[in-house]
Amino acid sequence: MTLFSFELLHQDSQTSARAGVIHTPHGDIPTPVFAPVGTQATVKTLTPVDLRELRATLILANTYHLYLRPGAELIADFGGLHQFMQWDGPILTDSGGFQVFSLSGLRDIDDTGVTFRSHIDGSKHRFTPERVIEIEEQLGADIIMAFDECPPPGDYDYNVQALARTHRWAERCKAAQRRPDQALYGIVQGGIFPELRVQSAEFLGALDFPGYSIGGLSVGETKAQMHAILEVLHPVLPAHKPRYLMGVGSPEDLFECVARGVDQFDCVLPTRIARNGAVFTHQGRINLRNARFATDKAPIEPDCQCYTCRTFSLAYLRHLVIAKETLALRLATIHNLHFMLETMRRIRQSIFDGTFAQYRQDFLANYRAVPEHKRGQRNLS
Amino acid sequence: MTLFSFELLHQDSQTSARAGVIHTPHGDIPTPVFAPVGTQATVKTLTPVDLRELRATLILANTYHLYLRPGAELIADFGGLHQFMQWDGPILTDSGGFQVFSLSGLRDIDDTGVTFRSHIDGSKHRFTPERVIEIEEQLGADIIMAFDECPPPGDYDYNVQALARTHRWAERCKAAQRRPDQALYGIVQGGIFPELRVQSAEFLGALDFPGYSIGGLSVGETKAQMHAILEVLHPVLPAHKPRYLMGVGSPEDLFECVARGVDQFDCVLPTRIARNGAVFTHQGRINLRNARFATDKAPIEPDCQCYTCRTFSLAYLRHLVIAKETLALRLATIHNLHFMLETMRRIRQSIFDGTFAQYRQDFLANYRAVPEHKRGQRNLS
Repeated sequence: MTLFSFELLHQDSQTSARAGVIHTPHGDIPTPVFAPVGTQATVKTLTPVDLRELRATLILANTYHLYLRPGAELIADFGGLHQFMQWDGPILTDSGGFQVFSLSGLRDIDDTGVTFRSHIDGSKHRFTPERVIEIEEQLGADIIMAFDECPPPGDYDYNVQALARTHRWAERCKAAQRRPDQALYGIVQGGIFPELRVQSAEFLGALDFPGYSIGGLSVGETKAQMHAILEVLHPVLPAHKPRYLMGVGSPEDLFECVARGVDQFDCVLPTRIARNGAVFTHQGRINLRNARFATDKAPIEPDCQCYTCRTFSLAYLRHLVIAKETLALRLATIHNLHFMLETMRRIRQSIFDGTFAQYRQDFLANYRAVPEHKRGQRNLS
Repeated sequence: MTLFSFELLHQDSQTSARAGVIHTPHGDIPTPVFAPVGTQATVKTLTPVDLRELRATLILANTYHLYLRPGAELIADFGGLHQFMQWDGPILTDSGGFQVFSLSGLRDIDDTGVTFRSHIDGSKHRFTPERVIEIEEQLGADIIMAFDECPPPGDYDYNVQALARTHRWAERCKAAQRRPDQALYGIVQGGIFPELRVQSAEFLGALDFPGYSIGGLSVGETKAQMHAILEVLHPVLPAHKPRYLMGVGSPEDLFECVARGVDQFDCVLPTRIARNGAVFTHQGRINLRNARFATDKAPIEPDCQCYTCRTFSLAYLRHLVIAKETLALRLATIHNLHFMLETMRRIRQSIFDGTFAQYRQDFLANYRAVPEHKRGQRNLS
């Protein structure tokens, strides 16, 4: 796997935060990194030019969605996702496991794989570890995921059973991989149970994957449970492999999870809330629809360097939202992704500078997070 | 009106086509010109940067819509539309007459003005010529329209009556104008009746407006009737004033109406059909939804220099449309506006080169227009 490597450049002395760089065939990814989500081969409302301007270094696409529509063969015929969507930077695909287990209706799981129905037209499909790797090789992302089973995080018996299957499937995914230019990550499961997580990290660690995902979090457990799992995993996961916390997170999650050793994130939050008119500020989320912005000449944040804040007033943005103009979605998406990407760039710099702990404290003291009981579920689309 | 002037630079020898330039406080507008429509202070899906890249030189905004939402006082408080929407090029506002007469439900017309109900919340409002000019001065566009009555084009008695009112209102609008940095156009009405149109052009011509609009066309009459009216008006309208055909048109309309002396156009067609997945080609409109594009690696048009065609395949664009991704709207809008603006730039150059008649013939021989009976009505939004 000479085309892919991870360099751990610096470790924070006060926390478990790590700074590094992932080398891929489509460019370097400084870590820790936040990946915008482009489920259907498009980060909603944005062009590749927009993503470059935002200095995104990694985007995620969803195997389940692209397999169903437009189809992996079609994308392969274009030379892969990079060519199809005209994004020449690094791409990561998930394995579709999460969607198959949560999004599709009828499904039938056995040790060989999963039969499920499309959420689009109800048609019947089957994913096996070998088939998923074949699809991910057709899509051609730089980083691909093993096919895993995603049980509810609090069901111990189910997690024990699912973990055994996930481990067997991880071995089969590894054996099925043919392309040398894709990095296949193993996915650590085990719900909220520390002993299962450790068992999973040790089993997968022995298989020597080039990177490790932490799956099944941010799907219903509490933040405290998520943090506890990360703390348990930190010393067990191979230190010189990147660690990817799937489907997380919010701005406060970036700080809390980087502090616990996470290198890689993805989340639909910044793009999804943008479509509801909600935007991040350093004091917390605000909604552009709010009447108090009707005459406000200030930008969302005065110091923000994103195109939206450099150009438009809150009053104009509110007008677009109220008038149901789709430009509002794009401008809010640009701001929210800039907020996440810029925050992550600052986090990384603070790790090198030895000021991460202080930055984390300052950020979290100002940022009013959405209360835990109002948190949504992880991305289903 | 030293801030606004029109230079007639060249007249075609074979047709009535004219090439010139309109000078405004926010820049020059080479004519003939096509103006993208930004009803609610946004050309749908596009930023000002996008419009600059498309080399748009004039955009239209709607007085009726902006008066209702977000309100003209608010926009005035920002220093006008240019500042509010951050477009620093020339802007034109219509007078709201067309919308009041066609869009709003309850309305009550008398010689003083029109009382109508908002299409948004049913609230009651009143437009008079003086009030409309006050609103247009608050909005602060470079080119503003007199308040006119817009009767159905085929109703002779109504057109006679409405024309008298439109003429009195034109005088009152002129008297009400206070700002010296806006060019107020008179609007020629008279339906499909040549004698009424001539009477209107002569009456308004005597009032010495800096420009003349031709209203009430493309609202139900045939193309032949529209062409006949333009031919009648050509020798009657002041030669050294710009002529603006409101709410027109399609690609073929550009050629047919430029050939009949029109300098200025606006139409929602390119932006509206984009939102249905339809795009212009030199052979006619195509719909991106069409299954025949599912695996097509070519762009919409191989020679097109727009961002969409330089970047994406038909297959990818179709995928975005089918997957209901809003990026599809933006990419189709960029292509369609580029098609209209670039066609108009070529028309203008061909007038200077003496090749307009040939270009018109070649274009129309290839372009399969939408049949007349399938044509939609003029913009209501």
